[in-house]
Amino acid sequence: MALTAVGSIAFDSVRTPFGERERMLGGSAVHFSLAASFFTDVRVVGPVGDDFGPDELSVLESRGVITDDIERVEGGRTFFWRGHYEYDMNVAHTDDTQLNVFAEFDPKLSGAARQAQMLFLGNIQPELQRNVRDRCREAEFAGLDSMNLWIDTARDSLVSAIADVDCLLLNDAEIRELTGEANLARAARAAMRMGPKVVVAKRGEYGAALFSGDEFFAIPGFMLEDVRDPTGAGDTFAGGFLGYLDSRRGAGESPFDHEALRQAMAYGSVLASFNVEDFGTDRVRSLTREEIGHRLSEFRRFTHFDAEPSRT
Amino acid sequence: MALTAVGSIAFDSVRTPFGERERMLGGSAVHFSLAASFFTDVRVVGPVGDDFGPDELSVLESRGVITDDIERVEGGRTFFWRGHYEYDMNVAHTDDTQLNVFAEFDPKLSGAARQAQMLFLGNIQPELQRNVRDRCREAEFAGLDSMNLWIDTARDSLVSAIADVDCLLLNDAEIRELTGEANLARAARAAMRMGPKVVVAKRGEYGAALFSGDEFFAIPGFMLEDVRDPTGAGDTFAGGFLGYLDSRRGAGESPFDHEALRQAMAYGSVLASFNVEDFGTDRVRSLTREEIGHRLSEFRRFTHFDAEPSRT
Repeated sequence: MALTAVGSIAFDSVRTPFGERERMLGGSAVHFSLAASFFTDVRVVGPVGDDFGPDELSVLESRGVITDDIERVEGGRTFFWRGHYEYDMNVAHTDDTQLNVFAEFDPKLSGAARQAQMLFLGNIQPELQRNVRDRCREAEFAGLDSMNLWIDTARDSLVSAIADVDCLLLNDAEIRELTGEANLARAARAAMRMGPKVVVAKRGEYGAALFSGDEFFAIPGFMLEDVRDPTGAGDTFAGGFLGYLDSRRGAGESPFDHEALRQAMAYGSVLASFNVEDFGTDRVRSLTREEIGHRLSEFRRFTHFDAEPSRT
Repeated sequence: MALTAVGSIAFDSVRTPFGERERMLGGSAVHFSLAASFFTDVRVVGPVGDDFGPDELSVLESRGVITDDIERVEGGRTFFWRGHYEYDMNVAHTDDTQLNVFAEFDPKLSGAARQAQMLFLGNIQPELQRNVRDRCREAEFAGLDSMNLWIDTARDSLVSAIADVDCLLLNDAEIRELTGEANLARAARAAMRMGPKVVVAKRGEYGAALFSGDEFFAIPGFMLEDVRDPTGAGDTFAGGFLGYLDSRRGAGESPFDHEALRQAMAYGSVLASFNVEDFGTDRVRSLTREEIGHRLSEFRRFTHFDAEPSRT
């Protein structure tokens, strides 16, 4: 089992109704890798600057994430994002983005990174996603996450990148925007005609929906009384989802198996529910496998009903 | 088993991206009763005018709904609503509302209506809901639906009405507005402190969430490629939900039992999913018990995952 994750490694400054934090470790590759590390071996690929120190590295390494492919740019500064949330925490407001070392990023990709059988292309420029996908030809399952920025500014590149992956992960509104279909089921089918056999629609606090072949699956969000910081929830979901699928693949199963995909949706949701309970990576970095198992059981109880109840 | 439903009996003129219809039979009590009729005996209470004819009556009676408590106002006209939906069909835009016979409605309530052991107070003036609740003292389970209009214009009356029912059904945004809590779980707990032991948050295409005591349950929306008219989906949900609960109550079980409530959420969702497939009552009036059972099984398959998957 080995999963290569490419995406941003960042410092995030975040304000929510529940507090404010400066320069926390974040980024799509970081949130993804921490979540996936509970299920499989993860190798993280991305550039950092001189401001990325041993403390940041140790967050990843203490979860067993392989950091050999993190590229340190001498004299550079790490990607920086500043944002805030109002009471509707489904919507992130960006106050500042500094690409820094990401502006010139040309991933080197070690032999080990290129040989991964599972690949995650986090939310970065679609051209970069295509470049990495082209060079990781061993991957039998590649997932891609993106955002409305690229639909608006680099649609053709994004469509090309999507054409070459197995699984597309996007917010439901973004799938609608990408395809021009108002109905989510139709929009997901249209997205599948672009290439991916699997489409995951992320729905914030409302959970997520999965489309694979003719199959469908939906899961509500895990209900929490305290959501402190939703930053990285989507990437954490993707990490739980692809990480679990890679563990099944490692056991000889197909990552396209619908039962495995359904279960992966549940694990992705569970991991995301932990992520939002505290700022940045604080909750996931201290998480245990037992807590994940316990919450999965709770979650099943919260969503279970019978197909043929005894009395009707 | 007997359920009394009080609410609007209406003519609706509706335009959606998929068509336009004039003066269809509608209203909260109508949509509710048709859905509940698949599970229990329903008695519908509400006023109509001279324009309400045998065709409208036969829609209800062909589903076995008891119409003795429909009050015909000589020389009056039936409640009328005109509205439309844009591509986001979660939002109804009201173009015209004519209360007509509803403006002076003072429900007479036959002895049979007052003796019902289950009561649904559809979305009408909170004062009217209180009036009916006060006179139906046999009901061991009363559900109340409302809307933002009454939160904005008659909050005190609404809070009094809520205090005297067992179950509150509202859109999730309305529960937040009513309680001033941004987080749905906290908002639902705050609503429970107003009186009801059970709170159902309706979430449009995203499904619904249930809070009862310390328990929680959530169900996503049933995924449909064709949603033609969402009018009445919430009342149809309520009809499936309370109708099923009444059938369990009739079998000697408590309507507060969490397993029964979970199952009722599934039936409510299934009924609502049929309602939106066609305009007005067109789909539900032709529905069969077999179609309901089949969709429930599909729905379970679409949402099922395991608490302890074989491999992790």
